[in-house]
Amino acid sequence: MRSLVTDQAEVQVSLEALDVPVPGPDQVLIRVEAAPINPSDLGLLFAGADLSKATAGGTADRPVIRAPLPPAAARATRQRVGQPLPCGNEGAGTVVATGSSDAVRRLAGKTVAVAGGGMYAQYQCADAAFCLVLPAGVDAVAGAASFVNPMTVLGMVETMRDEGHTALIHTAAASNLGQMLNRVCIEDGIPLISIVRSAAQVKLLTGQGAQHVLDSTTESFMDDLTAAIAETSATIAFDAVGGGLLASRILTCMEAALSAGSPYSRYGSPIHKQVYIYGSLDRGTTDLTRNFGFAWGVGGWLLTPFLAKAGLPRITAMRERVAASLTTTFASSYAGRLSLAEALQPDAAATYARTATGTKYLIIPNENATAAAAR
Amino acid sequence: MRSLVTDQAEVQVSLEALDVPVPGPDQVLIRVEAAPINPSDLGLLFAGADLSKATAGGTADRPVIRAPLPPAAARATRQRVGQPLPCGNEGAGTVVATGSSDAVRRLAGKTVAVAGGGMYAQYQCADAAFCLVLPAGVDAVAGAASFVNPMTVLGMVETMRDEGHTALIHTAAASNLGQMLNRVCIEDGIPLISIVRSAAQVKLLTGQGAQHVLDSTTESFMDDLTAAIAETSATIAFDAVGGGLLASRILTCMEAALSAGSPYSRYGSPIHKQVYIYGSLDRGTTDLTRNFGFAWGVGGWLLTPFLAKAGLPRITAMRERVAASLTTTFASSYAGRLSLAEALQPDAAATYARTATGTKYLIIPNENATAAAAR
Repeated sequence: MRSLVTDQAEVQVSLEALDVPVPGPDQVLIRVEAAPINPSDLGLLFAGADLSKATAGGTADRPVIRAPLPPAAARATRQRVGQPLPCGNEGAGTVVATGSSDAVRRLAGKTVAVAGGGMYAQYQCADAAFCLVLPAGVDAVAGAASFVNPMTVLGMVETMRDEGHTALIHTAAASNLGQMLNRVCIEDGIPLISIVRSAAQVKLLTGQGAQHVLDSTTESFMDDLTAAIAETSATIAFDAVGGGLLASRILTCMEAALSAGSPYSRYGSPIHKQVYIYGSLDRGTTDLTRNFGFAWGVGGWLLTPFLAKAGLPRITAMRERVAASLTTTFASSYAGRLSLAEALQPDAAATYARTATGTKYLIIPNENATAAAAR
Repeated sequence: MRSLVTDQAEVQVSLEALDVPVPGPDQVLIRVEAAPINPSDLGLLFAGADLSKATAGGTADRPVIRAPLPPAAARATRQRVGQPLPCGNEGAGTVVATGSSDAVRRLAGKTVAVAGGGMYAQYQCADAAFCLVLPAGVDAVAGAASFVNPMTVLGMVETMRDEGHTALIHTAAASNLGQMLNRVCIEDGIPLISIVRSAAQVKLLTGQGAQHVLDSTTESFMDDLTAAIAETSATIAFDAVGGGLLASRILTCMEAALSAGSPYSRYGSPIHKQVYIYGSLDRGTTDLTRNFGFAWGVGGWLLTPFLAKAGLPRITAMRERVAASLTTTFASSYAGRLSLAEALQPDAAATYARTATGTKYLIIPNENATAAAAR
């Protein structure tokens, strides 16, 4: 699958027929059996296009989806115009060929997961060093999402600890990632405040043992959040929403909780309050009211630079923890499965690109459309 | 001088007659001869009130200025309702009495500068340890502003170095503080990009040797800023404006300069871009467009926590540098002088509270109104 932005401010996502690639000496060739559509895949796939205006083209086997880019999206993707980019950050499958080195040969026949990009494909080569051999009893479907969400969740917890905080706030918290973070925080005894947008999502998370779940659409949200922060001392938040006032409201409530009972200071509480924006469910501007003193920070957060800073021993420990609990703590759930061709139907794209709770899909690259549809 | 926020959403600033205070064993009593009105004083003084609706009251000797607080200002100052707060962060004067300890007695008769608060007063006690003895040839007027602006300027430069940057961007850069930062950067060989809001301010700073001065009101501002960042590699900015899109535009230009010529990455340049907001000339929301990748941070910056982190040896070195150049590098200039009573006239307050370039005033607490007005 390839995503191309044209100089006519249009994105075209299509399937390209290629020869099966040949692995290098330290690589394996994976027959990809499952690859999730994560929110982090959508930006590359559709480049911020307006999918309500998407049109279908091509043939049944080789469909092409086209959609126009609003001006801001066209500006933001100028540098990729004319380059057909491979899609799909992560996935899992069977090693069907290996490079020549001895260390690589022992992976032959194993089921492995990898986050090397280009996984929306029937076959893909990957460096053996980056492959996670799935434990017995974990198939490619269960192991397909073993990298992005699990490592992001653990990266958030590690960042919290590194920066001296002891409790967490998470937004859009009913997502697959949010549910996973809830399970990790319960396991590790970390107080977590989950912010969601509906009563149904509150119910979903409390049903999974979450203690502090707040609906940001309620009247009492600011008071409830302030009370929960006072109880947990959560001074760091990870925000998947990005746009609007949510990050600002979190900082306002942190400041209210921290300064309650203290003598007035025009500079606010000296305790640092941090919001990291790691997603962009709302693409509008982030608006900060700055009524929360001067000891605050808002910044971008991404898994890759965190891992680069963390270093290999820590990454290895994180991966081992994930591998040991792929069907429990780090399990993902999907609304359905799609073949490569099905993923390029405008209706399907409009559904999975909503990134709403319960609309996460799995691509099954090596089944034909009929078999996948029958499920 | 005392500032009081009432429960009727009004600020009242007035003069209170007090006995001359008696210094503690390790304190000195200072006859205050000059105290600047810094932007950082105005928040405490007027609590965000609407000064266009200010009214004068009291008597000629003991005037009272009253002004209503807009709802947001009233909310932000709830914790100080009913407490008359002393005003004036810093100033200088003569030590007219000392505490009993030997170390303190040798300050008798000296001209000292101090940033201990409550300096809009005829007499004020201060801890001797925090007093800077002004060098020969530097009087109280020249030494009145020897703490807030000079230490802020040096704190910015030190923060830049601590966080691994090599060049600086500064906004509202024609201010006293901005001119001082320009002189320090020239001395230290640090590339500085100064952002101002008029051609006259461009001329002012270039006349003082500044190399990169950009007018944010021009059509070509974004292109000019991107080019200046590409030339200087400035990846940290200190922003006194706070509200609006300026911080966001700076990050956008940093990203454009950093990613120029690189292959497309949907996550943007991996080089961290930082904007610290240290003022609030625009009290509106800070709006971030987030079209600058994920390696960015926006945060509050204040002198006091910086100094707390820096530690005493570094603070001492900074203070020594300031003391040695108070009439050159670290000199301030004033639009005029005001007595305590004059500072409480609505017309005067409306002028100095504008915090526009060239409207910085000095309070002379121990002259009567007539003498000060004659100058």
